[in-house]
Amino acid sequence: MKEGKIRIIGIAGSLRKGSYNKSILKAAKEACQEEAEIEIVEIGWLPLFNQDMEKNMPKDVLEFKEKVKKADAVLFVTPEYNYSVPGVLKNAIDWLSRPYGNNSLEGKPAGIMSAAIGMLGGARAQYHLRQSMVFLDMRPMNMPEFMVSFAGDKIDENGKLKDEETRQKLKDYMAAFIDWIKKQRA
Amino acid sequence: MKEGKIRIIGIAGSLRKGSYNKSILKAAKEACQEEAEIEIVEIGWLPLFNQDMEKNMPKDVLEFKEKVKKADAVLFVTPEYNYSVPGVLKNAIDWLSRPYGNNSLEGKPAGIMSAAIGMLGGARAQYHLRQSMVFLDMRPMNMPEFMVSFAGDKIDENGKLKDEETRQKLKDYMAAFIDWIKKQRA
Amino acid sequence: MKEGKIRIIGIAGSLRKGSYNKSILKAAKEACQEEAEIEIVEIGWLPLFNQDMEKNMPKDVLEFKEKVKKADAVLFVTPEYNYSVPGVLKNAIDWLSRPYGNNSLEGKPAGIMSAAIGMLGGARAQYHLRQSMVFLDMRPMNMPEFMVSFAGDKIDENGKLKDEETRQKLKDYMAAFIDWIKKQRA
Amino acid sequence: MKEGKIRIIGIAGSLRKGSYNKSILKAAKEACQEEAEIEIVEIGWLPLFNQDMEKNMPKDVLEFKEKVKKADAVLFVTPEYNYSVPGVLKNAIDWLSRPYGNNSLEGKPAGIMSAAIGMLGGARAQYHLRQSMVFLDMRPMNMPEFMVSFAGDKIDENGKLKDEETRQKLKDYMAAFIDWIKKQRA
Repeated sequence: MKEGKIRIIGIAGSLRKGSYNKSILKAAKEACQEEAEIEIVEIGWLPLFNQDMEKNMPKDVLEFKEKVKKADAVLFVTPEYNYSVPGVLKNAIDWLSRPYGNNSLEGKPAGIMSAAIGMLGGARAQYHLRQSMVFLDMRPMNMPEFMVSFAGDKIDENGKLKDEETRQKLKDYMAAFIDWIKKQRA
Repeated sequence: MKEGKIRIIGIAGSLRKGSYNKSILKAAKEACQEEAEIEIVEIGWLPLFNQDMEKNMPKDVLEFKEKVKKADAVLFVTPEYNYSVPGVLKNAIDWLSRPYGNNSLEGKPAGIMSAAIGMLGGARAQYHLRQSMVFLDMRPMNMPEFMVSFAGDKIDENGKLKDEETRQKLKDYMAAFIDWIKKQRA
Repeated sequence: MKEGKIRIIGIAGSLRKGSYNKSILKAAKEACQEEAEIEIVEIGWLPLFNQDMEKNMPKDVLEFKEKVKKADAVLFVTPEYNYSVPGVLKNAIDWLSRPYGNNSLEGKPAGIMSAAIGMLGGARAQYHLRQSMVFLDMRPMNMPEFMVSFAGDKIDENGKLKDEETRQKLKDYMAAFIDWIKKQRA
Repeated sequence: MKEGKIRIIGIAGSLRKGSYNKSILKAAKEACQEEAEIEIVEIGWLPLFNQDMEKNMPKDVLEFKEKVKKADAVLFVTPEYNYSVPGVLKNAIDWLSRPYGNNSLEGKPAGIMSAAIGMLGGARAQYHLRQSMVFLDMRPMNMPEFMVSFAGDKIDENGKLKDEETRQKLKDYMAAFIDWIKKQRA
């Protein structure tokens, strides 16, 4: 097994400043800071993926890919747009997966969280994301799952997760996820 | 029923210059030109969707939304990226669907085509796109379906669909799609 | 348009005697009785589907297929088993769809309801069922959707839907579904 | 790591006597016999799942569950019915998963194969099955995948896999699957 603190790349699927999912990602980062370091990366600066750019990828995209490749795991925290993964997040994944033979996500343990205003808490986005992970050959944890429904009631105006039950579930999720990462690294 | 030629917006899910899906979209446009007009719109210029921009949408995005809203139907021709809809295409759909209450795709009859280098011809992207259409409340045609596998063998270096069997299937698809549009307009 | 009261076949996806989904189906039947007649059919007696039996289908299976074929629409009310459609219900659908060329569900308007103990209310089963409907060439209504979460709190020990909000949503759903059926028959 | 030969339960998703999927399962059994033993189990005798029977499960169902529980892994070889998992196979999975707290499939490494007459080779069934595996908390291998399209051309009238390319792919799949099982057992 590799030495040192576990390094997780955290990606939020929404660009909105007051995004519930960004709040959840920050809360996840705090919840596991003794055992793992979550580095939150931005995806809003990425151009729209165009295969013609593959042979001459922009330098910052290459650096983004390299950073993800070096991490021990990836944590996606995403809203659901139109019953699926937001285009913004999918675009980042498309860049990370290319060019063929240089998939920065290959073999990576993956965590998935979602938060939404409605009752389903972003569930539909999670299963679409999981299907992408088959091709990406990632190692998503199955159980527990983490979905925050009625997110507007659980996060305050400063973006702080105020709901105690959700906070506990998040803590449990992160503990399970870190075990999962360790098992996959073994 | 509305008068006049059927107006279809055609959207290709790939930005690649020599995209197989762009070729298929052009062939579809030609195949139905007596009964319908397919206007091919670009999506590569769209910014990444950010909900914070909803209240003050860029003018060209509003025009894009308006153009789609006025059409009788939408035809998506898309590759499959990572077993799902390309981020580029999903991003366009996310813009078209927003803000809440101003979904430019609502009620629109929809056609779906896909082309891919591999055996499955982009099928996995089609079913994810269909799930989005539930929320979007679109009217996708079910049968026939149109998937071009091994697209590299069927389209020549000038982007011309050279495979006769595929060309015939495309013609049949467009005829069925136009019937479908007419039935939904009735 | 056809004359007379709309005839809907109602199928519950669970065999459990005290099934929440059977309760919802009964409530749906009552909710629309002025405009439509829901005939609830049993599926627990069906044998497991075996393609070898296709050429010589049991008489009661043929009658079942014929009854569904004559209906104006089908309403599925189903739990979610293992994040998908129950085998019991899928088995009934497999019989109804066969043999090739004698799909009893073809072109039928479809309603989908689900009830579950958990938060997601059976949603995952609904989207799998919708994918089957693409092949079956059915006409599922998109919106509104109807999912009953925490069903144990909303249905009493006599199988009566006691939650007023859910009852109203069900009524609205059935009204929309009947409009949908009429539009498809037109 | 556990000692001895790897024991895999093999389940075919079709009851048809001359099933292509049964043929593939037999070929898989032969392909890996030096390293693993595939025990092919029947599922056609199972009753339709009824939750009322959970507290008093038939003895042969309990034995079936026990046998699967003792295995090191499960290999599903299935056709696609109506763009999803056959009811017959889903019914077996529903039994294996219940009652709550006694999921015979939990944590098991899983292989998935599919064969179909058409071009997609049963792919759509595979992704639905994978979604069930999230809840079942199984460990499905991601890559390689194994789908046999145009199965009628590749299997002879005696049910023998005659296509050399497919045979090689199957061999490679089984080798990868055995590695996957070993890794999960570690």
